[in-house]
Parts: sequence; structure tokens; C-alpha cells
Amino acid sequence: MSGNSVGEICRITTFGESHGEALGVIIDGCPSLLEIDTDFILHELRRRKPGQSSITTERNEDETFEILSGVFEGKTTGAPIAIIVKNTNQKPEDYDELKDIFRPSHADYTYEKKFGIRDHRGSGRASARETVARVLAGAIAKLFLRQHDISVQAYVSQIATIKVEQHYSELDLSLTEQNIVRCPEQSIAKKMITLIEEIKLQGDSIGGAITCVIKGVPVGLGEPVFDKLHADLGKAILSINACKGFEIGSGFEGILMKGSEHNDSFTVHSSQSTESPDLITTSNHSGGIQGGISNGMDIYFRCAFKPVSTIKLEQETVNKNLQNVQMKASGRHDSCVLPRAVPIVEAMAALVLTDHFLRNKIYSHD
Amino acid sequence: MSGNSVGEICRITTFGESHGEALGVIIDGCPSLLEIDTDFILHELRRRKPGQSSITTERNEDETFEILSGVFEGKTTGAPIAIIVKNTNQKPEDYDELKDIFRPSHADYTYEKKFGIRDHRGSGRASARETVARVLAGAIAKLFLRQHDISVQAYVSQIATIKVEQHYSELDLSLTEQNIVRCPEQSIAKKMITLIEEIKLQGDSIGGAITCVIKGVPVGLGEPVFDKLHADLGKAILSINACKGFEIGSGFEGILMKGSEHNDSFTVHSSQSTESPDLITTSNHSGGIQGGISNGMDIYFRCAFKPVSTIKLEQETVNKNLQNVQMKASGRHDSCVLPRAVPIVEAMAALVLTDHFLRNKIYSHD
Amino acid sequence: MSGNSVGEICRITTFGESHGEALGVIIDGCPSLLEIDTDFILHELRRRKPGQSSITTERNEDETFEILSGVFEGKTTGAPIAIIVKNTNQKPEDYDELKDIFRPSHADYTYEKKFGIRDHRGSGRASARETVARVLAGAIAKLFLRQHDISVQAYVSQIATIKVEQHYSELDLSLTEQNIVRCPEQSIAKKMITLIEEIKLQGDSIGGAITCVIKGVPVGLGEPVFDKLHADLGKAILSINACKGFEIGSGFEGILMKGSEHNDSFTVHSSQSTESPDLITTSNHSGGIQGGISNGMDIYFRCAFKPVSTIKLEQETVNKNLQNVQMKASGRHDSCVLPRAVPIVEAMAALVLTDHFLRNKIYSHD
Amino acid sequence: MSGNSVGEICRITTFGESHGEALGVIIDGCPSLLEIDTDFILHELRRRKPGQSSITTERNEDETFEILSGVFEGKTTGAPIAIIVKNTNQKPEDYDELKDIFRPSHADYTYEKKFGIRDHRGSGRASARETVARVLAGAIAKLFLRQHDISVQAYVSQIATIKVEQHYSELDLSLTEQNIVRCPEQSIAKKMITLIEEIKLQGDSIGGAITCVIKGVPVGLGEPVFDKLHADLGKAILSINACKGFEIGSGFEGILMKGSEHNDSFTVHSSQSTESPDLITTSNHSGGIQGGISNGMDIYFRCAFKPVSTIKLEQETVNKNLQNVQMKASGRHDSCVLPRAVPIVEAMAALVLTDHFLRNKIYSHD
Repeated sequence: MSGNSVGEICRITTFGESHGEALGVIIDGCPSLLEIDTDFILHELRRRKPGQSSITTERNEDETFEILSGVFEGKTTGAPIAIIVKNTNQKPEDYDELKDIFRPSHADYTYEKKFGIRDHRGSGRASARETVARVLAGAIAKLFLRQHDISVQAYVSQIATIKVEQHYSELDLSLTEQNIVRCPEQSIAKKMITLIEEIKLQGDSIGGAITCVIKGVPVGLGEPVFDKLHADLGKAILSINACKGFEIGSGFEGILMKGSEHNDSFTVHSSQSTESPDLITTSNHSGGIQGGISNGMDIYFRCAFKPVSTIKLEQETVNKNLQNVQMKASGRHDSCVLPRAVPIVEAMAALVLTDHFLRNKIYSHD
Repeated sequence: MSGNSVGEICRITTFGESHGEALGVIIDGCPSLLEIDTDFILHELRRRKPGQSSITTERNEDETFEILSGVFEGKTTGAPIAIIVKNTNQKPEDYDELKDIFRPSHADYTYEKKFGIRDHRGSGRASARETVARVLAGAIAKLFLRQHDISVQAYVSQIATIKVEQHYSELDLSLTEQNIVRCPEQSIAKKMITLIEEIKLQGDSIGGAITCVIKGVPVGLGEPVFDKLHADLGKAILSINACKGFEIGSGFEGILMKGSEHNDSFTVHSSQSTESPDLITTSNHSGGIQGGISNGMDIYFRCAFKPVSTIKLEQETVNKNLQNVQMKASGRHDSCVLPRAVPIVEAMAALVLTDHFLRNKIYSHD
Repeated sequence: MSGNSVGEICRITTFGESHGEALGVIIDGCPSLLEIDTDFILHELRRRKPGQSSITTERNEDETFEILSGVFEGKTTGAPIAIIVKNTNQKPEDYDELKDIFRPSHADYTYEKKFGIRDHRGSGRASARETVARVLAGAIAKLFLRQHDISVQAYVSQIATIKVEQHYSELDLSLTEQNIVRCPEQSIAKKMITLIEEIKLQGDSIGGAITCVIKGVPVGLGEPVFDKLHADLGKAILSINACKGFEIGSGFEGILMKGSEHNDSFTVHSSQSTESPDLITTSNHSGGIQGGISNGMDIYFRCAFKPVSTIKLEQETVNKNLQNVQMKASGRHDSCVLPRAVPIVEAMAALVLTDHFLRNKIYSHD
Repeated sequence: MSGNSVGEICRITTFGESHGEALGVIIDGCPSLLEIDTDFILHELRRRKPGQSSITTERNEDETFEILSGVFEGKTTGAPIAIIVKNTNQKPEDYDELKDIFRPSHADYTYEKKFGIRDHRGSGRASARETVARVLAGAIAKLFLRQHDISVQAYVSQIATIKVEQHYSELDLSLTEQNIVRCPEQSIAKKMITLIEEIKLQGDSIGGAITCVIKGVPVGLGEPVFDKLHADLGKAILSINACKGFEIGSGFEGILMKGSEHNDSFTVHSSQSTESPDLITTSNHSGGIQGGISNGMDIYFRCAFKPVSTIKLEQETVNKNLQNVQMKASGRHDSCVLPRAVPIVEAMAALVLTDHFLRNKIYSHD
């Protein structure tokens, strides 16, 4: 009800403020007997970590985690899994100057009005640091999906005007992690990095797009009507800080096609495997989802991130006393969140897939 | 859990198949003492009605409704409101030929695989006719919002390549209903109508975009983290048949801006009204939502609709016996759903706003 | 949120007022391919029907139903099942005299204060007539459970001081429906009937207890901590009009035993069937549930019903204008609801079992 | 869905195993600006603490807690409140002997079958130690209710055959905490203590009943139909380990009354306070709830606890290999949980009241 939980069956609840004692997540409804690979969780956490490269913030957040419950002798027990990350090296006094200011395009004003109180230290609950909890839960979800041969992989497909022109299927996504901007097309990646560095020098910020591809999804995930698989993916992705748009399959481009071009024709699957769907489609403008339900083809979507609000340039704004003031961010911040948003997008997608995988088990007639 | 409900406090559940006995909706959690204007409900229903103009399907669905419960002496009682629309003139035999065919880009295949059974008559539950129930519930939501001076208005902003170039704030939205395509820019509307008529003659279909504007929203609606107001709007809109994309405020365009351009500066509101928010922003790239919570500015979003899957051209596909077959839709169908989707988009937006309005009451300190 | 729904996976929502257009229920989340035996549903409805015997109210409510959705060619499709019962022969004017009166121990006062409006006709939404919807949904649940060889059977075990002294296991429950009071012990049944007839002549009312036995439950239903199987059963039963108490297994009697007497010892099941639980307990004070989860033994519980509030004797009360008034019920009412509550108790128990059966499928490792 | 959460608006999720790293709770949906009195929370925790008196277990669990989130400068912020209690002095090896045994009337067997894995150390998640988390959350709920002048007070009203014969209204409940058994009637308390000491010497265990009284509840809490206030109280209380029965108001005793005796007559409230309900009832067999909604009178209920399953006497049971074995508990355990269950019952009742208080705000027309 308060928006800190997502998922129906495998339901996560995140908690914690940027500069509070700890951030964490409860994963409730994870099936028992899943082996927990803590190295993998740490790996995921480090993909989101600030200070990991020259184009991200230099802040060096503590990135170790503790599993408090739900895992016994290396396996999940079916009980809620609580994972926390302690906040260390908090310097809340760094944020004292922001105590009374409503920063442009931040959540300061809306939180203050909604709750009548606001933990202003590093944006408190509204900080992108909250996504640590999402990545932890997403790592568990990925371990679950891996068991079922489902993979989730995202990459940066656009930074400002610099765009990967190819369709995801023409790219080698295994190259994504080979550069610090997380773009599988190396020449484009270089241009993106150069641009981000320029913007950083200017003290400004810049946005972009991430494309995410989910492979190995069985037919049948997603529910008709309101909980269509892409609707739940859309909500999960739009809930990430700074995300402003979501499109599935052909998305906004699909507007420009005729039905006769856009329709995905069915054909019999040549594979003899009983695991495979019996049909495939010859094109995939649907993005792997028809009538809200997965059809066994790749699911892919794209999402837009605005330029982050925190910039080092001077800006006009208003304080709590309704006085006009000028401000300039002084801390260490990302000029472009896209590279670090890649694991967050994957985490949210993995959580939605896990939840719908389990939802679909209920009605299975096997 | 089965995806037939949406909303947390004011929660609707829709039921019914395209060619079953009736379609309907339960609206549970609507506050008591709301006056029910049945003429307004009928008006909304007629805006969605097939056969309302030369560019929509000629099918003439029965569009009367019955309120079965929850209203007493013209006012809501706080009990669940059940509204049904009976299906008349059903000719299920019209659909017999589709019984065993998996139509391209329809939900036939995914439903069949998920449920092991499928009401094939007019797409059954997957039919866009299900949105009748949404419009009924949305009408109640609009009546509720009207009490609080909140308005929801959508219009067709793009059909294929024909696009309204102006920002919504430069348009006179009161002109929207003056043409059959529901575009407030009359010269663009004419071009859209001509294009749709051409496509209809070809037996093909075409997509487009709808823009929706919500005015009068108080500060504070929306929840941090997962239930951000635009995330819930996104899910609700993406759940509409044929919708493939959603963007809030600057959306995908925002990618191209720098932070210094995109940030919305606060300034003190000149109005002396105690009802008004004390601050406004000088630009509104945020789309009226910051940190997931409304800031009192207009909320606006845009959404993409693919060309509808049902076309009169011959297509290749596969039947239940995994045989390749050819098919051609014979019934009466829309070549472009956009005009009729306008009231559906409004209905879904109104339902999300109503729900978050009520959610926000819980924590109000008044 | 408004209390008109129950169940997590197989979730029902009831609607309708005693003297409104219709009562009904949406059953959402019922698995597809369940065969719907409409004769059985009617049979259950008639067990709840008023006017079925000399000891129930003489009102003769219309008891036919219409299935509006979710069933195709006799089977469920996985879509929401809507069932309604139209209200006929409504004589709302019969209730005009109650418009302004707060009847003792009825919901008149609390509804009026909570909602600011009240459909006073025959108690509106607070009427026990709402349970028609529960029985309809419960009939579907029983059809589902029957597929899995789970049976739910209740009987009247006490009316005022007249009590069946034997444990349920010593009774032949198949005799329950052989008398109008629904007590399997015929000599006790006779005494109960005599007592109810006396009370009826006095214009007074009387309460009692119902015992319910659920057989064939597999091991594993129920969730740890808050959604223990008996906690969910308790809530469902306590939500029935006039129910004031619930006890599982040994219940309040268990207070009087020592742990050494109360503990149920495990022993290996002699049956060779692979379907059977491998262990049984030599006693069953637990009532088939341990740690909130079914252990494969019979589940049994007992619940208390107060004497109904509507009596024909003169009573003092207060009206809307806070004036003391005297009143006397004039309509046709049950002096004892227990016989007609038997199918309602069964329905609620069947719904809880169905829901937990489906919940348990999620985590099954089969 | 997995049963680790309760509440709709103010929703708690507990986590942690008896001998894991930590136990804890997330309280999500607590209104902002509530002052957090940490001394009070500690006080409540100590009322539940083992080893607090000669009649409870001698185990001396660590009872300090850490608030990880949701509180800023002593006040709640509206963000989720995470509170944990670290487990110290864990000696899991003490439990090695229980690894393969299914103890009588414990959750060992049902957990093993449901999840395929079981944290056997001190019963893991099924341990009554989980209630630490409930008491922490309940303390926050009590702080909230206190703001609204609502109090929740429970006491031991029966141990085996020793019973407080007076109605709660004839007792001075402020004396409850003056003896170690938490019974306000001092002479009865003495007898209870003597009996528990005897049973402890025998190595056996004993059950009892707790009565709980809630004062100051405004009219209007609770929802019609399924979420009746007493139904939600019943579920919450029945979810406490070892609880086997629940009754509201007259409960099972109400069976013995006629309607003319049981009905609670309304009368005008003499108080002139605008805060008070305008009506009161001259008797209160309803237990403060009519039609599922509070009527402003005291709410009171009674609940039954079975004798705890852990006894020091030798018992027959079965192990994982389906061999008959004999066992005898060796650890330190309560012979009677009732005194320590008093704060747990209060906590659960306070959580239900808080949740319904907030639910009722949604529909308020103030």
C-alpha cells in the first residue's frame, strides 16, 4: 500500500535511507531449495556500485551484504530472505546545506508535502541508493530464473544522440560488460564514454536509453487484462529513479507500421525438443508477448532515462520558507546514470519474470 | 492474482467475454455518498461504442448498462458497485471458422497454451470488448475526481506519420470531441481521417499515439519506490489492448536534453488561494510527478498503439493441428482503434488517480 | 480493502444488497478446465434457501442463478466466473418503518456512522442474504476440491443447551441431511427441532454451534506465521453473520489437558498407497494442522452462533433523531439460523481450502 | 502470499529464524510524524522476554533491538520501519539431536513435507521466538493508538481449571502486571503460579486462556462482509503459536442465551463530549462490534492456548527414516506460555486496530 513492495507471489519489500543505518530487502515467496550463490550476488552488487569507473560517481559506497534469514546450509528454506547492506562512512553533515532547500526535479518538495517530514540526508528514501536493495533481490531472482534457463540481459543503447542503430538481435550481447558504459557495440561505446566525460567536465548531466532482452521464457507467463506481462514489466521499470518511458517490442516505432507489416506470423517450430514451444513467429514485433502472455519468443523492451537532476551548475530554486535561493550540488555524483542502471533494469525485469513464472505454476495442469 | 483486478483502495474487477452473457465490473472501495450521474456513464460508454462513426467498426454493440448494487437513492453506499452490460445479437457461429486457428498477433495461441481452453468467440476474454467494463468504472472514477476538481482529458496526437506537433499546452483540448478522430487540431484531424479511410479500403490497419492530460491534481499523490504515480499510470495504460509504449512528461525526448535544460525550477505560486500548491515549476518536463509523487503541476503522458491485428488481407498462420493455413478476417473491425481508445485511456488514468487520491488520504495529517 | 473479497489466489468478491437488483459473486482465479455441475450449485443454494422447512423463515426467496462469464462449453476457462441471483418479489416498503431505527444488535447504527448512508431495505448489504453469494462460490470450490478427493461436511452440534456429546468421529455424518435441523444424531435432532419450535412460538431466537470436518486434505496446506490454515479458516468463519467464536481441534477444551495428554504422537502409516501421507498421528487434538500447516489428518473445527437479533418481542431502542423508541420485528425471520448456516460454513471452509490448495502449488517441487 | 505479512495499510512482514543471524520486522504504512519512544518498545520486548520469572523458561535471550530505517530525528517518516534483534549465544549444536526427529505436535513434519528443507535449530521459523518481531511491531502500533486514546490490555484469565470468574469489567486491570502470571485477580494469580510450578516439576506443560480488552475505539472501524473487525482480530490471534480458539464478546457462552437476552439495547449517551459516540448500548454481548464494525463500546475477546508441545517427559515419535524413536526435550522451555503470551496477544490486537483505524480514514467524510 505504501509502495515499498512489488510482486504478488515472490514479493519484495525494500527499506532503508541513503544515510540511515542500513538498506535492505525482504524477499518473501522465494521457493525453497534454491542454492544461493553469494559470489554472484556480490558480483551483481558491484555492477551497480558507485565509483566503479571513471564515468560514474567517485563515491565509494560499502558494498558488502549480510543475509539475515531464509537461507540454511546454502539453500533457501521458503522463509523470507532478509538481506541488508550497512551504510558506512555516512557523512550526513555533508547534506546539511540541503536541509531546507527544494532542489529542482528532485523529490524534496513532494516528500515534504506528502509526509510533513523528510530525511534530507542524501535524498533519504528517494535516493537512487535504494536500488541496492533491488539489485540484491534481483540477484536472487536471476538465480531462480537460471535454474529454468531464462536469462535477462540489458545494455545501454543510447546516450543523448549517440545511439546503437542495430536491432538487439544483430549484436553480440556478451560484449556488453567489456566497456565501462555497458554498450555491446564497441565503437558506439567509445563515443558514449567521450560524451559522458565532456558533460561531466561541464558539471552537467545527460540521459539515455537501455534495451533489455529476456531469453528462454516459456509460453504462458503473464495474466490477461490488467496484469499483462509487459504491463507489469512497464511498471517495474518505470519505478526506477529517473526512468521516464517504457516500450515493449516495436513500441513507439510500431505506430509507423501497417497491421500487415506488424503482425507476427506463426510457423511450426522445427526443433524436436519437447521443451520448446511448438510454434514460433517469423517476426517478433510483439516483443514476445501476445494478449499479455509470453509466446516463447524473446521478450525485449527499451526504457528512457532523463538526465539526472543533480548537476554542479548553479540553479535557481526555492527553500522551505518560500524564498528564492541559488544552489549548486557539491558532492560526488554521476553525470550519467545509464551504465549503473543496467543491472537495476535487469534486476527489476528478473523480479517480474520470477513472479509471473510462479504465478503461472498455480494454473498449470501438469 | 489472475490479473482481472486493478487498484488498491478503489479496486475494480472486470469479467465477461466478448460473446458471453454479459460483461461487467465490480468497483469496490468507492467512497459512499458519491452522486451517480447515469447520463454521464452512458455518455462515456457511447464514446467507446463501436459503430459511432465512419472510421470505426460498423458493429453496433448494445450499449446500455444496469447497476446491480452499491447505489441507493442515487448515491453510492460504500458497498461494491456492480455494473453489467448484456451481450445481445451475439452470433457466435460467425466465429466458428476461428475456432482452431491461431491468428497472427492475437492472444489465441497464448491463451490456448496457458489455460488449455479458449472461448474463441470474438476473442472471448481477450477481446477489446472487455474495455467496456473499464469505461464504466472509469466513468465512476471521473465523477469522483470531478468532486475534487480533477479532470482527465485525452486526445489522438498521432496516426502513423501524421502528428500533432504542438505541445498539449498550446492546444484547445475542448475541441477534441468535435471530430470523429478525437484530435483537437482540426486540420491534422482531417488528414488523420483521410488516412484511416484509405487504410480501411485497403483492408489493412494502422496505429498511433494518444496524449493524456490530467489537471487539478493536488500535491502528494503517488507512493515512493515501486508505486510511483507514473509507474501505476504506465501499468494501467500498457494493460490496454494494443498499447505498446508509455512515456511520462518529457519521456523518450528527455534523453536528448541536458540536466540543466531538463530540470524544472521551483518558484513561488502567485495565487493566494490556500487550495493551490505553494510552489509551481517554471517548466514541466517532469510531467507533474517528482520522486513518484504529484507536485501539483499538470500530469501528462503519451502512449503508443500498434496497428490492430485484425486485418482483411490474407495472412499465413498455423492451426491447432500445427498445419499451415491461410486466413482473412471477415467480420466488421476497426482499421484504427485510436479514436475509440481515447475514452479508455481516460478511464484507466481516472481509475489510477482515484485510487492514489484515496491512498493519500490515509496518511494525511489534516 | 473494503472487505468484500476473500482469498489470495482463488479470490471471491461478493456484491449486492438484500433488496437491490441482484446479489452475486465473482470467483477469480479458479483454475481452467473444471467441469461446472450446475445441478450441484442449485442443490447447494437450496440448502441455504429460506422457507425450506418449518423451522426456518417462511420467506420464499427466488433461488435460481445465472452464470454470466468464465464458463465455456461447461468448463471453466480461467477467466473470472460471475454468478448472479436476481432479487424478485422485493417489497422494500415492508422495511420503511425501519428506515430511521437503529435495531438492537444489528448493523444499522454502525453502517450509518461509517458510511453516512444506509440501504435500510432488509438490512441491505449487512443482510444474511449476502451469504447466497458465498454459497454459490463455495459450490464451485467444492467441485474443485472433489476433484482432489477433499470433502467438507458440517453439522449442527448444539442448539442452546442441547448438544451432541459424541466426537465427530463417532457419528455417521451421512445422516446429517436427514432431518431439518441438520444434526446427524437423530434423537438430539428431534430435541433441537422441538426447542426451536418453542422459541419460534415465543417470538424469540436462539443460537448454537456447528462442527465442520474436512477429510482428504494433503499434507502441506497453509502458510507459516500469519496465514496459518486455521487462522484463515477462523477469519472466514468469523466473517459469517452472527458467528461469535471459532476453535480448531481441541480448542477451548484443550486448555484443560496437559501437554503429555494433548500431544499427538506420530506413527508410520500402514497404508501402502503413495498418495497417503507417510505418517499419521495416533490422536488428533491438533485438528489436522500443525504449525499452521495441514498434516494429512482430518481437519475439524467448531463455531458459535449467537441467537439472531431479529425477534418478534418488543424492544427498546433509539432512532436517528436520538429518540427512545419501541420496536417489534414484523417480517418473516428465522428463530434459529443454525440449520441454514451449515451450507454457509461449508462454503467458507471450502473456499479457504481451495485457496490454500492453489497457494501450495506454487512452491511444490513436483 | 507466503504468510509472513499481515495488515492491509499498516502492513508488517516478519523474518528470521530462532537460531539464525537475526529476527526482525518491517512495518510498512505507519503514518509519518509518530514519535518513537524506544524505552516503551524495550519495555514491551521485556514483557515477552524468556527468563523474566521463575515460571518462564530460564533461557536468557538477548533482548535489544536496532531500528534500521524509517525513523528520523525520533519520528517516523512514512518510510518502512525495519527493526531487528540479533540472535546471540546461539548454540545450534544443542539442537543437533532434533535434526531428524519429527517431534509430536510440532511443525517439524509439516515444514519438512511442505518445503523439502527445514531449519531444525530451535524450530527455525516455526519457533515462538518469531513473536519477538510481532511484539516490536505491536509496540509501534500501541504508540500510534495511544495518540488516539485507544488502549489494548490483555490478561491471563484461565490456567487449566483455574479461572477468573468475574467479567473483565469487574476487575482492576491495572493490577495485571503486579504478578508474574499476569492475572489481575491476585488470589487466582497465586493459584495459577502454584499450578504452573507443579507442572514444571513434572516436566509437563499446561494451557490456558487470555482475555483482551480494547478501550477507546471510535465507531466505524472494521469492514462489512469478510474483513469484519472481529474476523481480522480472530485471524491475527489464531496465528499466534499454540492458540486454538477465539471468541468475541459473548462468544461460545452466547449460545446459551435467547435473542431477547443477548440483544444490546441502544440508549443515548449522556456525555456531552463531541468526541464520544452519540449512542451507547446498555449491555455489550456484541463485544463492541456490530455487523463487523466497532460501535464505540469496549471490544473484548478471549482466546485459548493449548499446553505447549515441548515437554521433558519421554514421548514416542518417528524420525525422518520413518523409524519409531523415543525422545525427551532437554533444553530450557516454558511449562506454560500464557504469561509471556499476554504482550503478544496485545501486539496482534494493536496491529489489527491500527490497520483498521487507517483503513477507516480512507472513507471518512471529514
